[in-house]
Amino acid sequence: MSILVVGSVAFDSIETPHGKVDHILGGAATHFALAASYFTDVRVIAVVGEDFTAEHEAVFTKRGIDTRGIEHAPGLSFHWTGAYAGNLNEAKTLGTDLNVFAAFEPKIPEAYADTDFLFLANIDPVLQARVRSQMPQVKMVCGDTMNYWIADHGANLAVVLRELDALLINDGEVRMLAGEQNTVRAAEKVMAMGPRSLVVKHGEYGATAFFSDRSFPENGVAPRPFRAPALPLAEVVDPTGAGDSFAGGFYGYLASQKELTPAAFRTAMFYGGVMGSFAVERFGTERLQAVTKKEIEARFKLFREISHLDHKEA
Amino acid sequence: MSILVVGSVAFDSIETPHGKVDHILGGAATHFALAASYFTDVRVIAVVGEDFTAEHEAVFTKRGIDTRGIEHAPGLSFHWTGAYAGNLNEAKTLGTDLNVFAAFEPKIPEAYADTDFLFLANIDPVLQARVRSQMPQVKMVCGDTMNYWIADHGANLAVVLRELDALLINDGEVRMLAGEQNTVRAAEKVMAMGPRSLVVKHGEYGATAFFSDRSFPENGVAPRPFRAPALPLAEVVDPTGAGDSFAGGFYGYLASQKELTPAAFRTAMFYGGVMGSFAVERFGTERLQAVTKKEIEARFKLFREISHLDHKEA
Repeated sequence: MSILVVGSVAFDSIETPHGKVDHILGGAATHFALAASYFTDVRVIAVVGEDFTAEHEAVFTKRGIDTRGIEHAPGLSFHWTGAYAGNLNEAKTLGTDLNVFAAFEPKIPEAYADTDFLFLANIDPVLQARVRSQMPQVKMVCGDTMNYWIADHGANLAVVLRELDALLINDGEVRMLAGEQNTVRAAEKVMAMGPRSLVVKHGEYGATAFFSDRSFPENGVAPRPFRAPALPLAEVVDPTGAGDSFAGGFYGYLASQKELTPAAFRTAMFYGGVMGSFAVERFGTERLQAVTKKEIEARFKLFREISHLDHKEA
Repeated sequence: MSILVVGSVAFDSIETPHGKVDHILGGAATHFALAASYFTDVRVIAVVGEDFTAEHEAVFTKRGIDTRGIEHAPGLSFHWTGAYAGNLNEAKTLGTDLNVFAAFEPKIPEAYADTDFLFLANIDPVLQARVRSQMPQVKMVCGDTMNYWIADHGANLAVVLRELDALLINDGEVRMLAGEQNTVRAAEKVMAMGPRSLVVKHGEYGATAFFSDRSFPENGVAPRPFRAPALPLAEVVDPTGAGDSFAGGFYGYLASQKELTPAAFRTAMFYGGVMGSFAVERFGTERLQAVTKKEIEARFKLFREISHLDHKEA
């Protein structure tokens, strides 16, 4: 079933120990959409400027992504400049030019009205809530946020959290949102704010899913937490978009399943890690544009091998 | 088969957000020995002072641990004072009184000469090397070290590393030892220094085993890395000794197996996590003294549940 993602389609200028790139296609919605497109139909709501050309649009359409929700506005697209040093775990933001994104008013094309799965990528929670309220028919809503919104837009974020089936954020964001250092207790506090389930991303250490008794209402009880590995990689070229690619793989897989079961959720965590591991192999979206279904399945098998006790030796 | 551990038997004064304890039994060899004692016979080489009473010795002997290698010297035992704040990931050392440990000269009782598995806990690499050279008959040697020895005693440490079947250290130590930020490349560099295999401990994120083509010589090729989870815990009372307990569970399980296979190594990683997860539930060695085989097996099953895709729902 189809996923609609609302978020940023942007250009990134990035420096990592592996090199430097200027104004390449990026943005949370872009990484998410490309990763999810290997599993299901994807639609995008975003705004771009005049620097977003037919060539950039083709990156989406070649993957079958519906771009009718990408609004073209006068001016330049959102532009992020950042650098990574050391072990590549943390980006240093050198510049954020919102450009056309500053006045972003998400508009939902009529053709998107039958969307079943909504993903609210990391944007102003006021916009996240607005999109959510215009799509009352969706079956599942997942979302992301970041420290900036948690710190200074808590009341607006609270409205979004109440509507979420699953929130996907990183360790630091969970602790900040809960005001609690212990991850398990922080996860409980965050789920009490609304999200039925919580996926905590640990970067190179993988991710942990936490569940409440509302995660799978028909089961009644909360399943155990679930830990999905990340692939130990000898070369991380560019970590930009790894978390969004995780979300795309995770949600794309879930949307492709008949039913939301604990087993499907666990498998989705693995596919999230798989897509995140591809994303970081090249700058920007290069790898996510060109990965194959066969490579995805081979890597899924590898994720199982590196984390499961019983398997045949290679 | 029996394990011999050489390391510190000490007293710890610890403050965590859960409370404060004064002069409780601790030390790397203590945590290691107790954790390993649930899997195999354990022998200890250490030195203690006059403050180490029959009651303290009974903590070992009640678990069937052979204490003939614990030397009693005039003076006080090694005493460590430390505190944890926030998310309990890092200890702040407030005091280190070496006392009788300053002149520690490990002496190997004749009765220990048939030891098959040697564990060199975190002590001066000069002493680690000396013990190793006096036990040429052992089948397997594993060891630990820390930033202090890596930074200032590199040449001595290099001698120890050449003799190790497996080195068990944490992320920061691997990066420091290799002078390399990427964990996979750092692991390769460290294994090139000697250790056939490397276990990198990630604290609350679990641990990763890295293998070389010398890890299982009969197989010829290096198996894939292996990621073992840690248990998400709502309450970590005292993280002191978690890494040593991991090592004890890991090595204890390995020593209990007929053969060192990749599958046994992977399972040992899980038992390491299991024993580490018990250790942190109470101050000092309290939990490790009293855990049962049944609890260990139940937790092993839980570790499998939280990390494996296919399992029956609880």
